[in-house]
Amino acid sequence: MRVEVINTGSELLLGEVVNTHLAFLAGELFPLGLRIERQVCVPDGLAIRTALEEAFPRCDILIVTGGLGPTSDDLTRDVAAELLGLELQENTEVAAAITARFARRKIPLSDRILRQAQVPRGARVLPNANGTAPGLHLPATPETPHLFLLPGPPRELRPMVRDQVLPLLRALLPARAGIVASQFHVTGLGESQVEELIGEQLLAIPGLELGYCARPGQVDIRCLGPGPAVSSATVVVREQLGAHVFSSEDETLESVVVRLLTARARTLAVAESCTGGFLAHRITNVPGASAVFLEGVTTYANQAKTRLLQVPAELIAQHGAVSAEVAQAMAEGALRNAGSDFALATTGISGPSGGTDGKPVGTVFLACAQRDAATTVLRRNFSSDRETFKWLAAQAALDLIRRRLLKA
Amino acid sequence: MRVEVINTGSELLLGEVVNTHLAFLAGELFPLGLRIERQVCVPDGLAIRTALEEAFPRCDILIVTGGLGPTSDDLTRDVAAELLGLELQENTEVAAAITARFARRKIPLSDRILRQAQVPRGARVLPNANGTAPGLHLPATPETPHLFLLPGPPRELRPMVRDQVLPLLRALLPARAGIVASQFHVTGLGESQVEELIGEQLLAIPGLELGYCARPGQVDIRCLGPGPAVSSATVVVREQLGAHVFSSEDETLESVVVRLLTARARTLAVAESCTGGFLAHRITNVPGASAVFLEGVTTYANQAKTRLLQVPAELIAQHGAVSAEVAQAMAEGALRNAGSDFALATTGISGPSGGTDGKPVGTVFLACAQRDAATTVLRRNFSSDRETFKWLAAQAALDLIRRRLLKA
Repeated sequence: MRVEVINTGSELLLGEVVNTHLAFLAGELFPLGLRIERQVCVPDGLAIRTALEEAFPRCDILIVTGGLGPTSDDLTRDVAAELLGLELQENTEVAAAITARFARRKIPLSDRILRQAQVPRGARVLPNANGTAPGLHLPATPETPHLFLLPGPPRELRPMVRDQVLPLLRALLPARAGIVASQFHVTGLGESQVEELIGEQLLAIPGLELGYCARPGQVDIRCLGPGPAVSSATVVVREQLGAHVFSSEDETLESVVVRLLTARARTLAVAESCTGGFLAHRITNVPGASAVFLEGVTTYANQAKTRLLQVPAELIAQHGAVSAEVAQAMAEGALRNAGSDFALATTGISGPSGGTDGKPVGTVFLACAQRDAATTVLRRNFSSDRETFKWLAAQAALDLIRRRLLKA
Repeated sequence: MRVEVINTGSELLLGEVVNTHLAFLAGELFPLGLRIERQVCVPDGLAIRTALEEAFPRCDILIVTGGLGPTSDDLTRDVAAELLGLELQENTEVAAAITARFARRKIPLSDRILRQAQVPRGARVLPNANGTAPGLHLPATPETPHLFLLPGPPRELRPMVRDQVLPLLRALLPARAGIVASQFHVTGLGESQVEELIGEQLLAIPGLELGYCARPGQVDIRCLGPGPAVSSATVVVREQLGAHVFSSEDETLESVVVRLLTARARTLAVAESCTGGFLAHRITNVPGASAVFLEGVTTYANQAKTRLLQVPAELIAQHGAVSAEVAQAMAEGALRNAGSDFALATTGISGPSGGTDGKPVGTVFLACAQRDAATTVLRRNFSSDRETFKWLAAQAALDLIRRRLLKA
């Protein structure tokens, strides 16, 4: 099955938004054994017509994102219907859903908005739980591929792909008896270290397709192939990478931490300096976090470290705010104040300024305090831009408590 | 001048790497009045041939990234030379540079590596300060566009574009006397509301090119055209959208808030419940935030609201943790404790659970306290997924203090 992707959206071509659709779709299609052979990005408006016409004869599955909205340059639905010779009809269920959505939000409904309820005859409607315009699946014809018209905003696109498009694609695929996929999320090792540890052994497994995806502070490994090949690969990964593998499910590191805390009925507090609230943010992104996350403080100013966490002013004066001693005192202060079972603390130099010879920009100290146990402190250097630094520091802090929880 | 971009690289189509080239190139080209009309991503190997053949007749400038390296599937240079009927010749300067680079790194040199010194006759070499393969500029012919072959790794591509490609493009462009660009970032209005307020008036301005980009809690407006057209557009935008425009620079809402606080020498503290640290995270993403941001607390538990912010337990019992009264008490507690000039507070129901009839999921109360002034409290509903909810609540809180600062 040849797969192509068309992204419409002038905001992508204008550089206002980075196109994350391609990487997302590729990752979701991988376990089905599908690869994207070509991706095209065209502006809003009539350019979608040529892009569709060119792609139709080349592929079996064509995924289009964007251009389903209410504005005059959202033409994907109209142009696709026209090219396929399908009349547009108002779908009463979609119209009702849109009307209800707008009534709930007390926003007046216009004809322009209701255009989004127009559906080409014969199309399957993919309800949009997170937005107004539904997705559409237009089945293949002898001349045209299976066409999936999907909304452009990632928060609408992603659940629709996972919940609705993938099951439809699975049903379309020829039986792939015995072909399975597995994935492993790894932290604490770089891509080349991961490859060095497992690459040769995995490449020697007959029939195994292997993919790596490296991101800041995380490497994902994906294996596809016959059951026994994937089982052999799993053994290699588990043996070589051990506790560096934090999940083999579709989980973030923060989800794993919240899951482990919940399972062990333990609570957490955080004290942040250099991560500036980002650690609390990641934890509170996990649904159900409120059951285990008690509180967080972001203490940028030294006075705040002393007042909110009782870090002695002399300790800061003696060792500096960015030091193992202050990280430890922050974590222990947070643990004591919140009465939690665990506390994490971060203090470091995110830059661009503030570095010294002994503690250059990128230096960070991470501490994990635990009730009735010794506090662990780590020093790391994440020399990077400010936001990546925060990401890497939070990733290391979450990994620190994850490893303690595995033993708890 | 019609501009297209071709990205080669199987790693992009496999989703191992997010394609940031398009957004980068678009941002660099916009001030030259150039827009990318189409972008295509093809895998390594022979697919580059069709992509080049298709693009040649359509555009005046074609920028290709990737496929210049030493491996057997790096074919961009060879295929381009073949299609243009240009012989490849070893460029002695490039060969010398590669040889020196490898000697410096004490890596043995192979024939494969030296392939990167092959240059099509008539091409201009763009030296690569950060890698091995140089870029190439093949001037336009009556049948083919200006062709820029550039390396794929961003750390090689970006400086080459800024230092070498942009000056060449500026020299190629017809004089664009008087063409200017302007942008406006808007919050507090949806895309259709913005279009309704300004769309017709802007479309009536002769010569004005208009672009919208909608994101959660923000709409960006871009105008390009002759000076007088852009001035007229600016008048319309300012009159119709007023204080909804938070910036006409390349700024985020949090940067504007930090800039306004810095200019007025005012300090800020935050008290977060439903935004869970995200508000502090956004503020501390801004370089220099440490000068104005004193501290933040994330008080998920009611006890934490009482202990860290002195919100009376009876107030929570009487009105609920998600209430105007508690939002106000949180902001005022944070202001008092931190001794700051301003304090922001958020309390709401991010979901998926926790809603009631009177306060459904998505309800949020935002408070802004100011020293020696009355506290403002807003109620909003952002019915959305958990992360978008946090984004929208933080956006509304930042806008609340921005508007107070404009009057301060």
